[in-house]
Amino acid sequence: MVNETQPTCSASSSSKSEGGSSSGSEGSKESSRCSTPVLDAERHERLRDRMRRRQDSGDKWFSLEFFPPRTANAAVNLISRFDRMGAGGPLFIDVTWHPAGDPGSDKETSSMIIANTAVNYCGLETILHMTCCNQTKEDITGHLQKAKRLGLKNIMALRGDPSGEEWEEEVGGFNYAVDLVKHIRSEFDDYFDICVAGYPTGHPEAESYEADLRHLKEKVFAGADFIITQLFFRSETFLKFMKDCQAIGITCPIIPGIFPIQGYHSLRQLVKLSKLEVPQEIKDVIEPIKDNDAAIRNYGVELAVSMCRELLDSGMVHGLHFYTLNREVATTEVLKRLGIWKEDPRRPLPWAVSAHPKRRVEDVRPIFWASRPKSYIYRTQEWDDFPNGRWGNSSSPAFGELKDYYLFYLKSKSPREELLKMWGEELTSEESVFEVFTCYITGEPNKNGHKVTCMPWNDDPLATETNLLKEQLEKVNRRGILTINSQPNINGKPSTDPIVGWGPSGGYVFQKAYLEFFTSSEIVTALLKVLKKYELRVNYHIVNVKGQNITNAPDLQPNAVTWGIFPGREIIQPTVVDPVSFLSWKDEAFALWIEQWAKLYEEESPSRMIIQYIHDNYYLVNLVDNDFPLENCLWQVVDDTFELLN
Amino acid sequence: MVNETQPTCSASSSSKSEGGSSSGSEGSKESSRCSTPVLDAERHERLRDRMRRRQDSGDKWFSLEFFPPRTANAAVNLISRFDRMGAGGPLFIDVTWHPAGDPGSDKETSSMIIANTAVNYCGLETILHMTCCNQTKEDITGHLQKAKRLGLKNIMALRGDPSGEEWEEEVGGFNYAVDLVKHIRSEFDDYFDICVAGYPTGHPEAESYEADLRHLKEKVFAGADFIITQLFFRSETFLKFMKDCQAIGITCPIIPGIFPIQGYHSLRQLVKLSKLEVPQEIKDVIEPIKDNDAAIRNYGVELAVSMCRELLDSGMVHGLHFYTLNREVATTEVLKRLGIWKEDPRRPLPWAVSAHPKRRVEDVRPIFWASRPKSYIYRTQEWDDFPNGRWGNSSSPAFGELKDYYLFYLKSKSPREELLKMWGEELTSEESVFEVFTCYITGEPNKNGHKVTCMPWNDDPLATETNLLKEQLEKVNRRGILTINSQPNINGKPSTDPIVGWGPSGGYVFQKAYLEFFTSSEIVTALLKVLKKYELRVNYHIVNVKGQNITNAPDLQPNAVTWGIFPGREIIQPTVVDPVSFLSWKDEAFALWIEQWAKLYEEESPSRMIIQYIHDNYYLVNLVDNDFPLENCLWQVVDDTFELLN
Repeated sequence: MVNETQPTCSASSSSKSEGGSSSGSEGSKESSRCSTPVLDAERHERLRDRMRRRQDSGDKWFSLEFFPPRTANAAVNLISRFDRMGAGGPLFIDVTWHPAGDPGSDKETSSMIIANTAVNYCGLETILHMTCCNQTKEDITGHLQKAKRLGLKNIMALRGDPSGEEWEEEVGGFNYAVDLVKHIRSEFDDYFDICVAGYPTGHPEAESYEADLRHLKEKVFAGADFIITQLFFRSETFLKFMKDCQAIGITCPIIPGIFPIQGYHSLRQLVKLSKLEVPQEIKDVIEPIKDNDAAIRNYGVELAVSMCRELLDSGMVHGLHFYTLNREVATTEVLKRLGIWKEDPRRPLPWAVSAHPKRRVEDVRPIFWASRPKSYIYRTQEWDDFPNGRWGNSSSPAFGELKDYYLFYLKSKSPREELLKMWGEELTSEESVFEVFTCYITGEPNKNGHKVTCMPWNDDPLATETNLLKEQLEKVNRRGILTINSQPNINGKPSTDPIVGWGPSGGYVFQKAYLEFFTSSEIVTALLKVLKKYELRVNYHIVNVKGQNITNAPDLQPNAVTWGIFPGREIIQPTVVDPVSFLSWKDEAFALWIEQWAKLYEEESPSRMIIQYIHDNYYLVNLVDNDFPLENCLWQVVDDTFELLN
Repeated sequence: MVNETQPTCSASSSSKSEGGSSSGSEGSKESSRCSTPVLDAERHERLRDRMRRRQDSGDKWFSLEFFPPRTANAAVNLISRFDRMGAGGPLFIDVTWHPAGDPGSDKETSSMIIANTAVNYCGLETILHMTCCNQTKEDITGHLQKAKRLGLKNIMALRGDPSGEEWEEEVGGFNYAVDLVKHIRSEFDDYFDICVAGYPTGHPEAESYEADLRHLKEKVFAGADFIITQLFFRSETFLKFMKDCQAIGITCPIIPGIFPIQGYHSLRQLVKLSKLEVPQEIKDVIEPIKDNDAAIRNYGVELAVSMCRELLDSGMVHGLHFYTLNREVATTEVLKRLGIWKEDPRRPLPWAVSAHPKRRVEDVRPIFWASRPKSYIYRTQEWDDFPNGRWGNSSSPAFGELKDYYLFYLKSKSPREELLKMWGEELTSEESVFEVFTCYITGEPNKNGHKVTCMPWNDDPLATETNLLKEQLEKVNRRGILTINSQPNINGKPSTDPIVGWGPSGGYVFQKAYLEFFTSSEIVTALLKVLKKYELRVNYHIVNVKGQNITNAPDLQPNAVTWGIFPGREIIQPTVVDPVSFLSWKDEAFALWIEQWAKLYEEESPSRMIIQYIHDNYYLVNLVDNDFPLENCLWQVVDDTFELLN
């Protein structure tokens, strides 16, 4: 089919011309086109539109439900789980609302803060649950305003459980979910996407199944955008429910809630809470194996897979919503067996994007925070404008204060004892620090037999890409070039490359080689002599904690070190070496020596003094090899430096 | 030497840190860095700073003086001369002020409009002369305001010749150049760079050489930035003058005015006007050969070359100013022999930049106007903001009205008779039009023996780059694919490549293959079928004069088709295929059929009706092959189309 586009651009001199139908143009209402190169159309859409797009294109999708954790440690673990399960490509996740747990507060474990983290730091489209009974209008509005401020765009509007034994209507208060839906629409217009709950077998408190359907219709007509259902045990239950909904005029998407049985006790508890009947044939299987968790889980997975297949095969279901109970294994297994877990999720950009609406245009970041993306998001959370397309548009980026960066999930995930095992109970010299860096790179155990799986500057094990450079990295770390960030040069690999690819298919990605390390002033002196031979080819920035700054970068301009060329697009340059923000990164990078490493040891102890000495005297160096089509010369630069020193 | 930079960025958290001297940083005062990737530092500097930079770096430079022409035809020729002589790399040109010729008016031949054209359309840094005697303050201020509005940044402040026989001082008026210098500084602060005239042998009306030096010092101390001298015949004259200036405290640059003798009469006239003495040794050579123009010019070139060499060898002179008398040959010859004519001027961008201050940040243009850059500048002259870095930043570019574009120097340089010889006295069919296009491509004479050296869409002969595609272009034009713009794909050639290179050295340039042509609706129908096979790889826009618009471009986004990667910079993407501005270009491209071609013939004549038919029925097509590392597939697309038609 020929795509006859009539641009909506009112300024173009031919906008008034006749001819051609007006389909296919996706220009926004504000302007004739997006102001930023759109790499991933979904990134700019609200949830209900994404859902429609997936439905229209026939793509099956899934979503995941989590509840807020009880402790800060559990929160750190849950956020790691968000990152891992986010990799499978859920359309959204949702976070339940626990009225007893101060859900709208700033506590690390509140529903609000967990949802905020999912959106901003994990880049997940997120629905925040909210219940309304026993709450004042002011409370509810306050929660919604806060959610909006944090970048949340979707609310699951629920009644919640009344606090007393008997349910009593409160005059003028929020008695039903529909009251909350109306309130959101009247106070926040169309800002939020609203989800409501559906009960395939009728709400336990409803007069009848039919009455419950009418309540559901009320909620939809009050402004809800889609429905997620309570769990159920047979696909027929859902399909009948869906037909009944359609019959009374409910046309919005209805998403089945899937509960993979994961254990005897959790099933019993859930059934009790939801007042559901477990079918006899399921009970018959489970009762005999109730003490065998693995067997129950395997059965639960089988059951869920076959029910999901029936739902998808019906042609009426496009997405599946999973009640995960904050566990990974069973849900992931079901999704993988259904073939809707993304094994190789395409990265829209080389770094993990944030789902905050104001960051949807963000398409460039300094390379320095590559291993600490959450810190970068945190330190730039107050920015109004995100540099899109070009870093230079943002003059003088002001980074959040360093004192704020001890955000709980930026702390190391490992406890002190484990860190001491990895990084040394006792340091005897600078060389024992070199040893730690070397073990991190090689993956081999240190002299006490412990593997070094994280470093203050890298919360996670080495990136796959870094493996490409392993041999050279090992050699230089052993000699006191303490690397914390690097990338190889890439001269036009397909954008679908499993290791270095990103962006839509049909494109090509490129990189300039990059190396960042701490090192002593003796090595810096030799390095600077060597770098004279590489003028023009190699750009460098060399700083110490006191702010001494040695560079050959022209005019404080950023150097694009990762870029991609795509069909029908402008060039995307998502990673830069930026001289100005390097100084903010420098403060953070040096502080990590003290905050995460030195403080493991007693004050005045020799170990602590060694780290303090490095902090006070070493330099942080970054090098870019501009000649990306040739072999990376940075290893030669380092070799030349060592040679000069010998 | 180590370049210790202390960034001026006040927002950076470490700007307050101590250590390191503060040299090397080039950040502007307004912001911590340039907001656009600086490819050519000079482009952002004012003239006096460029002069200093050249002096500091030891680069010799030259400048060229022209006078405004008498007729519109002469103006068209002069502007072509600007383009040709501009290619040699003058630091600036200057345009004299002729009080008798209504110099501040909007006439095509006025000093003001010629200077405007040099700056805006030829991209030349330009000094506009201005005289002040016999003029009111209001007149002068009006001229200066107009000059500022047009983007002129430099004024040569002169007294001018009094209108009467005897010179009489006017109380409170402008009596001397110094009055004009003071006026400019008081009314326009530091906006203009001001140049004043110096007289190596003293002004003819001055009481004495010494008194004249004192007047010069007054002009400099009133705010002049540099001095250009009257012509002289011996290098000693200038060098003595320069030392005398320095002795009384004149420290600004003093640029010698060089007059290559080009003919007996022009010399006599100039000498009479300037009241100079021609040295006897020169008279002795010239008198005997006064009727032999070539001999005099050769002698003049010799004389100028040897005098210039003496000046440059003195070490006191860094730049030479040439009185060209609007002629090319002698001055170019002198410059080439001195080795300061740039044989291979490096292009800062793939298109000719404009020198208007507001266009200094311009670094992207649509490819459509590649052969009509002056039209593009004209149609965008009202823009306040120039899209820098990314076309997308400029939402809905509004192009100047088409009715305005008959700017005199956008008309064809060839007279009607010549055009008829090239494009056909009489057209008999669409095929005779194909023939004209084919001859333009091949460079071979048409059937009447005339070469086709220009087309309505291309004022100049084929670009060198297009020669790379000649064979294929010939083949397709012969069959009715009437090409008007194309570029080959380039996968990372050095930025110094003599044909496709641009930007600073050490970089790499890239292109996507591009082809733009008019063709019949039969061919378009077949083409669209063929293009389905090339979805994703090939982007197309197909429009007709009525505005029908067929495209597969996503979201009206521009497609970058020329880009460059440079050391220490962001990526520069100076040429895009932009769906929105293509519709403005389409109107212009179709109008040229009528305005420049059809109107050569009588109304109702068969020839005119053939062109009119093409205008009304053909489509304008552009194709981009996104897969730049592979062999250009656009020829295959066209071949497939012809095959389908057979």
